[in-house]
Amino acid sequence: MQFHLNGFEPGDPEISDPAQRYPASGAAGAVPEEVDILIVGCGPAGLTLAAQLSAFAGIKTAIVEQKPGPLLRGQADGIACRTMEMFEAYGFAERVMKEACWINETTFWKPDEKQRENIVRSGRVQDVEDGLSEFPHVVLNQARVHDFYLDVMRKSPARLEPYYARRLIDLEIGAAASGDNADPYQVTARLERAEPAHEGQTETVRARYVVGCDGARSAVRKSIGRALSGDSANHAWGVMDVLAVTDFPDVRFKCLIQSAEDGSMIIIPREGGYLFRLYIEMDKLGAGERVSDRNITADDLIAAGRRILNPHTLDVKEVAWWSVYEIGQRLCDKFDDVPEADTVQRLPCVFIAGDACHTHSPKAGQGMNVSMQDGFNLGWKLAAVLRKRCAPHLLHTYSAERQAIAKELIDFDREWAAMLASSKGFDAAETQNYFVRHGRYTAGTAARYRPSLLTGEPTWQTLAAGLTIGMRFHSAPVIRVADAKPVHLGHTIKADGRWRIFAFAGAGDFAQNSGIRALCDFLSQADESPVKKYTPAGEDIDAVIDVRAVFQQSHAEVAIEAMPSLLLPPKGRYGLRDYEKIFCPDLRSGQDIFTMRGIDRERGCMVIVRPDQYVAHILPLDGYAPLAAFFDGFMIQG
Amino acid sequence: MQFHLNGFEPGDPEISDPAQRYPASGAAGAVPEEVDILIVGCGPAGLTLAAQLSAFAGIKTAIVEQKPGPLLRGQADGIACRTMEMFEAYGFAERVMKEACWINETTFWKPDEKQRENIVRSGRVQDVEDGLSEFPHVVLNQARVHDFYLDVMRKSPARLEPYYARRLIDLEIGAAASGDNADPYQVTARLERAEPAHEGQTETVRARYVVGCDGARSAVRKSIGRALSGDSANHAWGVMDVLAVTDFPDVRFKCLIQSAEDGSMIIIPREGGYLFRLYIEMDKLGAGERVSDRNITADDLIAAGRRILNPHTLDVKEVAWWSVYEIGQRLCDKFDDVPEADTVQRLPCVFIAGDACHTHSPKAGQGMNVSMQDGFNLGWKLAAVLRKRCAPHLLHTYSAERQAIAKELIDFDREWAAMLASSKGFDAAETQNYFVRHGRYTAGTAARYRPSLLTGEPTWQTLAAGLTIGMRFHSAPVIRVADAKPVHLGHTIKADGRWRIFAFAGAGDFAQNSGIRALCDFLSQADESPVKKYTPAGEDIDAVIDVRAVFQQSHAEVAIEAMPSLLLPPKGRYGLRDYEKIFCPDLRSGQDIFTMRGIDRERGCMVIVRPDQYVAHILPLDGYAPLAAFFDGFMIQG
Repeated sequence: MQFHLNGFEPGDPEISDPAQRYPASGAAGAVPEEVDILIVGCGPAGLTLAAQLSAFAGIKTAIVEQKPGPLLRGQADGIACRTMEMFEAYGFAERVMKEACWINETTFWKPDEKQRENIVRSGRVQDVEDGLSEFPHVVLNQARVHDFYLDVMRKSPARLEPYYARRLIDLEIGAAASGDNADPYQVTARLERAEPAHEGQTETVRARYVVGCDGARSAVRKSIGRALSGDSANHAWGVMDVLAVTDFPDVRFKCLIQSAEDGSMIIIPREGGYLFRLYIEMDKLGAGERVSDRNITADDLIAAGRRILNPHTLDVKEVAWWSVYEIGQRLCDKFDDVPEADTVQRLPCVFIAGDACHTHSPKAGQGMNVSMQDGFNLGWKLAAVLRKRCAPHLLHTYSAERQAIAKELIDFDREWAAMLASSKGFDAAETQNYFVRHGRYTAGTAARYRPSLLTGEPTWQTLAAGLTIGMRFHSAPVIRVADAKPVHLGHTIKADGRWRIFAFAGAGDFAQNSGIRALCDFLSQADESPVKKYTPAGEDIDAVIDVRAVFQQSHAEVAIEAMPSLLLPPKGRYGLRDYEKIFCPDLRSGQDIFTMRGIDRERGCMVIVRPDQYVAHILPLDGYAPLAAFFDGFMIQG
Repeated sequence: MQFHLNGFEPGDPEISDPAQRYPASGAAGAVPEEVDILIVGCGPAGLTLAAQLSAFAGIKTAIVEQKPGPLLRGQADGIACRTMEMFEAYGFAERVMKEACWINETTFWKPDEKQRENIVRSGRVQDVEDGLSEFPHVVLNQARVHDFYLDVMRKSPARLEPYYARRLIDLEIGAAASGDNADPYQVTARLERAEPAHEGQTETVRARYVVGCDGARSAVRKSIGRALSGDSANHAWGVMDVLAVTDFPDVRFKCLIQSAEDGSMIIIPREGGYLFRLYIEMDKLGAGERVSDRNITADDLIAAGRRILNPHTLDVKEVAWWSVYEIGQRLCDKFDDVPEADTVQRLPCVFIAGDACHTHSPKAGQGMNVSMQDGFNLGWKLAAVLRKRCAPHLLHTYSAERQAIAKELIDFDREWAAMLASSKGFDAAETQNYFVRHGRYTAGTAARYRPSLLTGEPTWQTLAAGLTIGMRFHSAPVIRVADAKPVHLGHTIKADGRWRIFAFAGAGDFAQNSGIRALCDFLSQADESPVKKYTPAGEDIDAVIDVRAVFQQSHAEVAIEAMPSLLLPPKGRYGLRDYEKIFCPDLRSGQDIFTMRGIDRERGCMVIVRPDQYVAHILPLDGYAPLAAFFDGFMIQG
């Protein structure tokens, strides 16, 4: 898709008339006085969370935003492979694939040894290593990502729209709601309206839970007495999105450019085929000096960009957006309102996510991606507790899991930013080497949760060596047996709050007198089966835990008629059979999931996957007791 | 995507609330009194045509429909590979891929030799042969295809909405508009309104062109004195879309089933994972007897289906739609208002498309697909004539091309229908064999236009043996040089009315002192260059003819900076460069377009592709004179 040729226009580029490109957004009227969840802030974290919660008609969510309407010109733009995998679960990956710019290769430029004032290409690497994800690394205006989430929310069972022009004044946390008669609406928020017709009016909202997705200056974070701490920034970078004519040949690649005397620059090609982004290193700031002291203009950035690109031309025709920022990696020590010492006796009711609890430099492309994973992590947990499927102590795992991940990523980001901004200019060869080595971090696929309530010990890890417990379920192609359709096994995981058990069959297993048959019998009949125990009466058998099987044979050898009922379950008001639970390897294309993910062919195994796509546990096919124990750790009978 | 579990619901399944699933459709107010084009009928042919015309803001189109609103429950459902390729040009292939049911294999069932009252599986074949198209064969409710076209129209430069509840009363064709002072609005149509507020009111619309897409009983066809002729039907088939429980194992495959005593049945799995369609052979009709004489009910169809499926169960829970029809292959001898004898002196101003000029049996899945290709064929031609880019005699090619294709397909359909409905039941082995041999017909990729004004002689066909002149441009994967993105070369062809020249480079061509360089010099500078001659002043250089090049080297070996300006053309108000014209083979995946499409590696070649994706001509890279002559045959200087 090509667009922005005659100037940057926000909104859906498939709509010809720019004035029609974004639908009306925003709820009319007052915020409800009582809600299950109040989300403060409509950024990537808040919208990911809201979109997840909107899947449940019974949960009453309000999302409020200080700005008067939806974002039109974005700040962030990088979308990591891991984020695309999550978008697939939310149902809009294919729209992003179509509209975004794909980052296929990254090139490196350094001073020409013969003529140091010129730059020359020093290297070229594939941006994402083969097999890391089935999705590409792409870039797209953050505002469009917001649009896709708003669309999910609008179409969802709960039909959510944000309340714009609301500023959080303060939060008050009531007495813990432990007793049966306690007020479940533990948190009281006061909001100030800013729309002309209601300017200055105060709204009071009582909520079971409040989530602060309100950015680096988070009012929610302050209300729970937490702070960001970390590096004081002393490097200034300029960022600008331009429509420009240049004879620099790599302007449609991601480029890391180091000039001899004029600092560094990163080029990020952007969606639509014409726009590109420049990250330009400005002078080092003095101690205590702020970017705002410098009076840097867009023209200063253009001039700096030109010097760095020498001998290439750069004729900027339009600046779609620009900013100057200081690098700062900062982190909050805990992401909820419960002090570390009180976690046994208190349950959290206020959470913070995204920039409210961790800030990154923009150049590793982490900020938006990590924030969205926060929202995905918290969303299913809040929904499970509100729907009385999981015990509320599950909510402690949010801060525990996400704070550790944020810390790792901030350490990585600090190293990377320092490398790019070292006073002598970065070393191109070393940078290229580092870039390749750390591609999994940048792609978002390196995140790994430590053993906990939700993450099993690696006792049986070797049964599926390529699916690491605590890491995201790494999808692979399979064939759906009932219709021979080539699909991705991981794409069966939708953002619907359900758990998955993928049962990989052992050798010669055709579901008769076999491990799969016995497992299905256990799951559907035994009293200690988590499927039986935790699926509310009257709901479909896969409403809480979705069991799917993968056999080793080709699809023509697997007989549907021999399958246990759990794998062809009757569902809905008519008891129609669900034919999408049984898979086999894509042998014809040579992509055998058993080989690709190191599944033990003799024994097979069970892979338990969380609602946010992370591998919770790996167990033998007959590991009924540890399976039951795992779910008993956090689930409750509704 | 799974949906329709608790009952068939029309509209967009991604919208949770069924009541919100289809947007308001339809233009308010009266049909304009004067339009460039009046389209009668909102079926597949009419909507394909309207969507094509809506790409041009300067063309005034009205599309009217007798029904009171958009279709909700479809008749047709099969979408051939070729149609998916066209949807890609219209920009919604990815939406269909996501929502539709993919037909991956077809299975064959026949009476069990040991127990003739039972059926057994006799064969299983891949539905579409490898490499036939980059798209699958899918099935989706016709109503959803309509929705996607309506969405394209709504978002388009011309922002078209249909006028519903309009019945065509009659058409009157005025004197030929040949002189300069002649009235260009040659056709006068009278419409009767049927909305409650305007019931019985008459509207008079004057149009330059009228297109009848008004089905088998077309009023437009009658107004130009044409008729369908062909077989009288004497076989009745029932069709029903059901939600049902069955132990028949292949219910998610397309199945051709022949029972010993109870006739034949075809099963077509449908979108959403639960719905499926049954085509059930009813008794042979007597001479002069009509289906309507039979009083066949849905229960009769279900009973017949059950007998055929024996020993399998079929428990129908909901019938979403059903109908009984007689097979009839009928054809009109010409698809416009000009008698064959008058084609030299008269220009057509009324056209018919789709079922108005050819009807098929539903079982070869041709009807909707051929109709849409009619609309695509006519759309760009009408637009080119109205925009004064092509001479009006171009319009004669519509009937010439499409009537011949319709005839071929009707012959194929007749053979296929006879095979399935032979009085002794079809022979499973013979049918399977036929099915495989004729897969290209069913996929819609066999259509081939004969040499004409628009279709060159095969003089240089051997330069690209795998891209047949007169057939659709068969896409192949390539790498875009400027950003190393893997793309499909054919997907650069959008439904935007432009011509394409794909220049395949000869051996060792790096665009310096080479065939590509010389061709670009000719196209951008020579007075006889069609690009120079036919591109209106002030428009982008690729506004009429879009030139793209494919080199033989890997993308890292092709230097953007060495390319002629025509391949990196400055465009739009800023003169921004278009970086999406230069490609190379996808060598890493082993899919080399030069090998796949039989391109002469020594000499290279030019492949000229029409706005509707058909290969118009193949020429040597230095075939400047035949290139100029080809375009001079129908283009005019605006």
